[in-house]
Amino acid sequence: MTEPLADGARPHPAFDRWQSADGRLVINGWDVERLAARVGATPFYAYDRAKISARVDHLRDLLPDAVRLHYAVKANPMPAVVHHLAGLVDGFDVASADEMQTALDTGFEPLSVGFAGPGKTDAELAQAAAAGIVVELESVGEMQRLARAAQTLGCRAPVAVRVNPDFKVRGSGMHMGGGASQFGVDAEAVPALFEAMADLPLDFRGFHIFAGSQNLSVDALIQAERAVADTALMLAEHAPAPVRHLNIGGGFGIPYFPKDRPLDTGPLKAALADIVGDLTARLPEAHVIVELGRYLVGEAGVYIARVIDKKASRGQTYLVTDGGLHHQLAATGNFGQGIRRNYPLAIANRFDAPADAPAQVVGCLCTPIDLLGDKVALPEAQVGDLVAIFQSGAYGPSASPKDFLSHPHPREVLV
Amino acid sequence: MTEPLADGARPHPAFDRWQSADGRLVINGWDVERLAARVGATPFYAYDRAKISARVDHLRDLLPDAVRLHYAVKANPMPAVVHHLAGLVDGFDVASADEMQTALDTGFEPLSVGFAGPGKTDAELAQAAAAGIVVELESVGEMQRLARAAQTLGCRAPVAVRVNPDFKVRGSGMHMGGGASQFGVDAEAVPALFEAMADLPLDFRGFHIFAGSQNLSVDALIQAERAVADTALMLAEHAPAPVRHLNIGGGFGIPYFPKDRPLDTGPLKAALADIVGDLTARLPEAHVIVELGRYLVGEAGVYIARVIDKKASRGQTYLVTDGGLHHQLAATGNFGQGIRRNYPLAIANRFDAPADAPAQVVGCLCTPIDLLGDKVALPEAQVGDLVAIFQSGAYGPSASPKDFLSHPHPREVLV
Repeated sequence: MTEPLADGARPHPAFDRWQSADGRLVINGWDVERLAARVGATPFYAYDRAKISARVDHLRDLLPDAVRLHYAVKANPMPAVVHHLAGLVDGFDVASADEMQTALDTGFEPLSVGFAGPGKTDAELAQAAAAGIVVELESVGEMQRLARAAQTLGCRAPVAVRVNPDFKVRGSGMHMGGGASQFGVDAEAVPALFEAMADLPLDFRGFHIFAGSQNLSVDALIQAERAVADTALMLAEHAPAPVRHLNIGGGFGIPYFPKDRPLDTGPLKAALADIVGDLTARLPEAHVIVELGRYLVGEAGVYIARVIDKKASRGQTYLVTDGGLHHQLAATGNFGQGIRRNYPLAIANRFDAPADAPAQVVGCLCTPIDLLGDKVALPEAQVGDLVAIFQSGAYGPSASPKDFLSHPHPREVLV
Repeated sequence: MTEPLADGARPHPAFDRWQSADGRLVINGWDVERLAARVGATPFYAYDRAKISARVDHLRDLLPDAVRLHYAVKANPMPAVVHHLAGLVDGFDVASADEMQTALDTGFEPLSVGFAGPGKTDAELAQAAAAGIVVELESVGEMQRLARAAQTLGCRAPVAVRVNPDFKVRGSGMHMGGGASQFGVDAEAVPALFEAMADLPLDFRGFHIFAGSQNLSVDALIQAERAVADTALMLAEHAPAPVRHLNIGGGFGIPYFPKDRPLDTGPLKAALADIVGDLTARLPEAHVIVELGRYLVGEAGVYIARVIDKKASRGQTYLVTDGGLHHQLAATGNFGQGIRRNYPLAIANRFDAPADAPAQVVGCLCTPIDLLGDKVALPEAQVGDLVAIFQSGAYGPSASPKDFLSHPHPREVLV
């Protein structure tokens, strides 16, 4: 499945983004062993606030001034991370009532929070209406349920229409749009939805049009944003009020696997200036929103587990850690990936040593699918060493089956 | 990926195991709507204690009297399930310190509890030694760490050796054994381990030899158990004390997918009588243990979610539920399966209606991988209906990323 790396080679771009001191990985100034001692237990996730801030800076340079940058809380809902981002971004996107509470706890005003998701319950719709956040409607049925909730509360609810576009994006890790979908209202059905909205206690604010996530091709991204803008302009002609909220998605990917290359954001600046310039010229009241989750936090996080056994079995070396798929499911290739490939992985306390001893890095679970690194070239490691799995800042503990085999949950720290 | 079923056809054997009344699914006497009202919320898991008991009865008929039947707690660690099984089985197998506590809370004596797992921490080994359960050693290093823990406690620790056999089992959903492995000690290395054990404060009690799980081929199972017995007899000649604990695994599978057929247990009775007869004749002090998890509880459980939206998109019908992959990861094909296939699924409150309206049954999450049923033939369903996913009694909530998108956790009920 995976080729061992050449001796000492570390081709994955993730390694270029981390420093070491005295041979040990440093996480925003913290020696990894010292940080483990501070946390008090392994395994843990560490998120580097400087890396998150730097990523936002990079985006601010890239995005036109008119764009509002939103953080998709689902990527990493740790409250400390969300509060750190509250000082950097312009709003949040949430996918459940609990995420909404986390977002509002930062003090953001409700109209800076959008709520998308195909299965919002009546209880969630009532909470959203009471809060006054922007509910991104996924169907006519959901619109009617939200209207009933608003009526009961005696208020009007701000809404946007989530659109299932009629184009498909190349090069996206996850396709959304272009065909039948549980997400949003088919573009061609939006005018009929506006008619049904007419007498309801809802305030139309705009659209959410999102065409895919985890995209590493800048050409595909630019093409998608152009198509999103065209769809928005076309639908705006039918809208019952000026477009003020226009979430054009994001979908910027990060490199996980050996052959992935980082997204080349260079061409995005001019292209987005052009696309957003056109949008704001024709929809002068619109706040154009770029929504990103994984791209903001994914590369800022590392999962640290300790080697608790080292054994040889029929010619192979196994490093058995106290971590595993119950904490970092995606890194074991078991979260929707068809083919298992290694995340970038290192021995954190031997960060500069030559990687010449291929090993199987496994978790502590009693199942053969608990494989963190398959034939990874590593320095000669020992019991007590710390394994670091990079690109772990998004969809980590919250997207893992933490109760599987009833081990302790991983800790999380923002440094 | 999946073919729609023929009109009204329900070929999956799971459907034969459930009854209805007034057109609604009945779970051990409970009308599914009444049960949902009792639970107080959807989604929930319901486990049928009569089905669990019946499965144990079936096994008691199949297994020689000398066999001790153990329950692998990891399959479903709900305390009520474990306590119900405590009245039916002869012991437990655990994979973590928390599972050990759950098992001991039932009142079973410690020597009826075995603890396997490649990454036992020092803390867990100390807890196991203090409890006096049988630690199934996975390596020489683990043996030494356990000995240190016992020394510190001033006690001797009962141990078995988990063996990585030198044969492979055909037809197993998950292979363990036959090659290099993180599980157990290579069979050929066991004699050296015995030498290293000589002066340690450990009481040798036997072996744990396990060759695979989720096996639906009875021929492969019988072949595996014969090979396991041969390995045990061969290794017993080197053992420092008589074999008293001999866990020969289990690995009996259950049918999940459209083309799976149930394990034909018929031929097992005579084969096991033969194999176990031979073992007990030659190892007269041995308790032969058959360890099963999924096979005891998997077919007794059903996951119930409510339809909260029904929408059409470009020619397809979507039933959007309040459940999803955060509760039932395996049913969405995202837990280690290469290819997504449907679990058996029904509209629980229209259980007897003809299934002639193909639908996409999706969860509430904002991700396209949250697909519970792909082109399933179902009765015409409505908002408010209950979706039942069968074969959900094992590796359900504990093996799912319950915090993904911060929705409420599913409830569990044993009826």
